[in-house]
Amino acid sequence: MAWTLSVEDLGYLAIGCAMLGSGGGGEPHYAVTLLKAILARGAEIRIIDPSELSDDALAVNVGFVGAPITLTEKLIMDGEIVQAIAAMRGRLNAPIDALIAAEIGGFNGLVPLIAAGLTGLPVIDADGMGRAFPRSDHVTFAICGLSAVPTVVSGEGGETVVIENASTAKAEALVRALSVAMGSKCFSVDYPLSGRDVRAHAVPRTVSLARDIGRYLRDAASAPGDPFETLRAALRVRWGLSCELLFEGSITAREHDTKGGFDVGTAIVKRAGNVDDTLRIDFQNEFLVAWKDGNAVASTPDIISVLDSHTLLPITSDAIRYGQRVKVVAMSAPALMRTPRALEVVGPRAFGYDIDYRPVDTRHHAQ
Amino acid sequence: MAWTLSVEDLGYLAIGCAMLGSGGGGEPHYAVTLLKAILARGAEIRIIDPSELSDDALAVNVGFVGAPITLTEKLIMDGEIVQAIAAMRGRLNAPIDALIAAEIGGFNGLVPLIAAGLTGLPVIDADGMGRAFPRSDHVTFAICGLSAVPTVVSGEGGETVVIENASTAKAEALVRALSVAMGSKCFSVDYPLSGRDVRAHAVPRTVSLARDIGRYLRDAASAPGDPFETLRAALRVRWGLSCELLFEGSITAREHDTKGGFDVGTAIVKRAGNVDDTLRIDFQNEFLVAWKDGNAVASTPDIISVLDSHTLLPITSDAIRYGQRVKVVAMSAPALMRTPRALEVVGPRAFGYDIDYRPVDTRHHAQ
Repeated sequence: MAWTLSVEDLGYLAIGCAMLGSGGGGEPHYAVTLLKAILARGAEIRIIDPSELSDDALAVNVGFVGAPITLTEKLIMDGEIVQAIAAMRGRLNAPIDALIAAEIGGFNGLVPLIAAGLTGLPVIDADGMGRAFPRSDHVTFAICGLSAVPTVVSGEGGETVVIENASTAKAEALVRALSVAMGSKCFSVDYPLSGRDVRAHAVPRTVSLARDIGRYLRDAASAPGDPFETLRAALRVRWGLSCELLFEGSITAREHDTKGGFDVGTAIVKRAGNVDDTLRIDFQNEFLVAWKDGNAVASTPDIISVLDSHTLLPITSDAIRYGQRVKVVAMSAPALMRTPRALEVVGPRAFGYDIDYRPVDTRHHAQ
Repeated sequence: MAWTLSVEDLGYLAIGCAMLGSGGGGEPHYAVTLLKAILARGAEIRIIDPSELSDDALAVNVGFVGAPITLTEKLIMDGEIVQAIAAMRGRLNAPIDALIAAEIGGFNGLVPLIAAGLTGLPVIDADGMGRAFPRSDHVTFAICGLSAVPTVVSGEGGETVVIENASTAKAEALVRALSVAMGSKCFSVDYPLSGRDVRAHAVPRTVSLARDIGRYLRDAASAPGDPFETLRAALRVRWGLSCELLFEGSITAREHDTKGGFDVGTAIVKRAGNVDDTLRIDFQNEFLVAWKDGNAVASTPDIISVLDSHTLLPITSDAIRYGQRVKVVAMSAPALMRTPRALEVVGPRAFGYDIDYRPVDTRHHAQ
């Protein structure tokens, strides 16, 4: 079930990662630019199934930490990623067999592919969230009690930092502080995992899922009939995933504030011709809860996405603008994110909402 | 010329470190509390002369980074210091022969002694500033082009962080960011130095100087005659150092602001009975420039200290209060801090003042 990344896949993946980003995770297109150049140089980027890893294989998490906007000033640097992986290899004193993403959603879903293109290592078809979340300790690995350390951080000045003996929450805080001191951009390599760990605790096949979602969205937009129904049927039939339309209308407001380094706010969608029929979406980088008439109609960990009504392309929470015609959809969270233990970390109460998680696939949806 | 620290020395050292702190460097008394307990347990703390180190001996810098006020909430933790030194030993894969202070001024002048009491390693009778300065890259080692990395930082949660391949300025920025993320308190071990480096680039005999200054100040306060003259003569005769009285009066104002993590402000001293005769002292943690009638009468890198008129005990810039009767004095900076290269880093222009450095020992002082 291994596959090799093509330029066509890359376009699909970027869209799929944006959708799985649930409005967050950063704009994937910066990574696409670099990946195209890497593929053009003849690099082969292999995506392998978790089942292909031996029990004792060594995999590490690779990700960008910071504000993706900084990458518009200076594109992602190959050197830092390679350096962070080399430093981790030196620290563990063992060869690294494969790379894995902490979050498939957004920009970070593509970072392991860049690292793979630069190092020749394969990328595991899995990730630690099945979507995007604001903090690195929101990964399944942390939820399952695996340790984030040793963690290696590298910055564009060539500096590398190794964090040891830290709790996962403390490691997250230290990495975030280092990122700010490194200009709000750095790469981290963390969560050394065995093949066994990956199979037990990673969300499987999310690279393939992201690619397929991107393809379904592209195909649906140009297919005859209702494009959303085409997408919905494809996800249901081929992946067994629920994807429900919550609301369709126009953005009439977006309010936000920066709190603790996160972009926290709400977006309001109104139905055409009916000013009283609105949906409110709360976000903290990612869309967290969608409200209708005071009731939550979808919530984290389910993936809430805002799609352009015509192109079906996902719109991130920071790109929401007055007047956009959108479809708001909710997609099933991965099973690993719905366990009682996971919901303590990524359920609505973990983000301060006094509501229970009701999975999108058990709700009755009447739009 | 090696000596062993006694409880009596400790009292003197704390006062001498406060004076050499030039108003900054943090209150040394937190360290005294811990050192007394360490000595009471029977530890021997040896201070060795730089000449006793072999050329290839390995010394490391040990210091506290953060807000000393945090130590009032929870006293300095033995474990962190020992852990940071052990991590550095592991990283360098070589035994550490001795410890040295980055700054003899204030709290950090005593931290290597604590580390020595806990590890049995000797402390070198020298330091990297001969006083205190706001930033860790203000040390002679950095000025002479030695590298701060590898740098080990340890926090109270037991976490250790190793910084590699960073410029000295970047390492300083990363350590400061880590300190904040660790609750504004951490210990750093950095600047691995050879015995040769120590002899060439450290300010020699500053632990002994701090002890002697403390003793002179204590003795002077209870001696007959003018206590400041007693201090002045002792420093001149026994250490060849100039220490000049700049002004005597009462504090009438202290204004300050927190900028970039530093406490930046001014203190005004007025002469008794003459409201127009004032001295202004600018500080950035440390006292940097003393002004009289618009002219600088002393400046960094010379050590400007504010002493209580009666007890001659040094008052830190953050402890200056309205109504205090004080003597403002200036003491010669170490030769290593007066070189053209050093003045680029620690002279008045480095702190934004458009004045030249005029050494206190070449000025005519008429108080």
